[in-house]
Amino acid sequence: MSYARQLLDTYPGTVTADVGLLAATIGALSDCAQACTAGADADLREQNLAEMVKCIRLCLDCADVCAATAGVVSRQTDYDANVTRPLLKACVAVCKSCGDECQRHARHHEHCRVCEQACRRCEQACRELLGVLG
Amino acid sequence: MSYARQLLDTYPGTVTADVGLLAATIGALSDCAQACTAGADADLREQNLAEMVKCIRLCLDCADVCAATAGVVSRQTDYDANVTRPLLKACVAVCKSCGDECQRHARHHEHCRVCEQACRRCEQACRELLGVLG
Amino acid sequence: MSYARQLLDTYPGTVTADVGLLAATIGALSDCAQACTAGADADLREQNLAEMVKCIRLCLDCADVCAATAGVVSRQTDYDANVTRPLLKACVAVCKSCGDECQRHARHHEHCRVCEQACRRCEQACRELLGVLG
Amino acid sequence: MSYARQLLDTYPGTVTADVGLLAATIGALSDCAQACTAGADADLREQNLAEMVKCIRLCLDCADVCAATAGVVSRQTDYDANVTRPLLKACVAVCKSCGDECQRHARHHEHCRVCEQACRRCEQACRELLGVLG
Repeated sequence: MSYARQLLDTYPGTVTADVGLLAATIGALSDCAQACTAGADADLREQNLAEMVKCIRLCLDCADVCAATAGVVSRQTDYDANVTRPLLKACVAVCKSCGDECQRHARHHEHCRVCEQACRRCEQACRELLGVLG
Repeated sequence: MSYARQLLDTYPGTVTADVGLLAATIGALSDCAQACTAGADADLREQNLAEMVKCIRLCLDCADVCAATAGVVSRQTDYDANVTRPLLKACVAVCKSCGDECQRHARHHEHCRVCEQACRRCEQACRELLGVLG
Repeated sequence: MSYARQLLDTYPGTVTADVGLLAATIGALSDCAQACTAGADADLREQNLAEMVKCIRLCLDCADVCAATAGVVSRQTDYDANVTRPLLKACVAVCKSCGDECQRHARHHEHCRVCEQACRRCEQACRELLGVLG
Repeated sequence: MSYARQLLDTYPGTVTADVGLLAATIGALSDCAQACTAGADADLREQNLAEMVKCIRLCLDCADVCAATAGVVSRQTDYDANVTRPLLKACVAVCKSCGDECQRHARHHEHCRVCEQACRRCEQACRELLGVLG
């Protein structure tokens, strides 16, 4: 069981949503932040580097936003929908843009396919959480 | 002249908006991220700690979102409005929530007044940038 | 298989260490960053909040350092031992301090026990990586 | 007066070092994190992109470490030398590596000269803080 899940299970108050969904979203956000960081780095080692610039930029953006969203979603104390909901929407947007750009390179670079999958899973997880959060 | 401004002035491509406005927004975002980090820490040292919990939580959220937004807005290469605009809206929202909560404590704790000012300035800067960005 | 592992397996150059060890370290760093973020938040909801202040502070520090270290260790391109080695040492140090403080509260707060485990595993992973990195 | 300085001046406890030095260090760390983020992005827009890869990688590392260090140094509550000192040393190291690499490109790219200056100032500030911190 992930630490994220264990920490939700031992949280001393009421959590903001189903713990399974929250833990899955936090995991998807952490994974996507890391995958985008590693993906941007792998892009830097490619022969067709000039064609990878947009992908690098979006991966860096996606890593930043997913890391921030992972932090906000990890916090259960004094939940504020006015903070979490717009951030989840922004995270969906950057995961969509980054996933689309990674997909363009996935046929040539396997690491872009992996990074795309992390983005798609994170986008889906954020959408699901948005669907149930107050 | 700030490093942010100097880096915009020496950027080898076309920047996404007026350099003065961009540099001011980047500065406001970096300042707000730091102020919220220091503000949450100052809250932890207060006598009425139990009443500061919501303020601490929102300061931590605001620091995370402002830092991510500072990163995204600092990047000029291959600008993607679908990424930047929702994130700026999310940043406006968290600066508003955090600024409002800091204001509630500003009469008793001077550091909350300082943190509120950083949030208000950042909220305003993000709104202005949203107004001119494509 | 984790995205971290898949991205190492598809990296288009030579990786800096054994991929299994690298992937495990990256996973431990990401987990610890998240656990410390969630742990600090759980501390904020405890009755004996005043006694948790040091734990909150160290958890916030540990989250920051582990996130930065996860980023640096995730990058394989143009490895620089002068950067990675001191950072891994700093990460070992903060995981040690934070794990020790979490342990002090683990009998009373189960989430502190979970957070301690994440810190210990991360400290150990960073030590192992330090032992093999050039 | 910077927000960092104002927050130190209104901190409700004892600060860990001279407020002027602390505020200058926090400012240098925040500036360097932003400059390295913007510098890596400017590198991505250069014609000789393949020669800039090491510079991009080090700028990303330096941004991560400076941001984490800014967070840790901003916190005054329950200071732990075992955490702060190794991190400041790691930050000195990455600012040195990154500054040296930026310097190599400073004749050709003015933004690298700006980024180098931010790194040098931050390295110096961290060294000074290390010299006075317990």
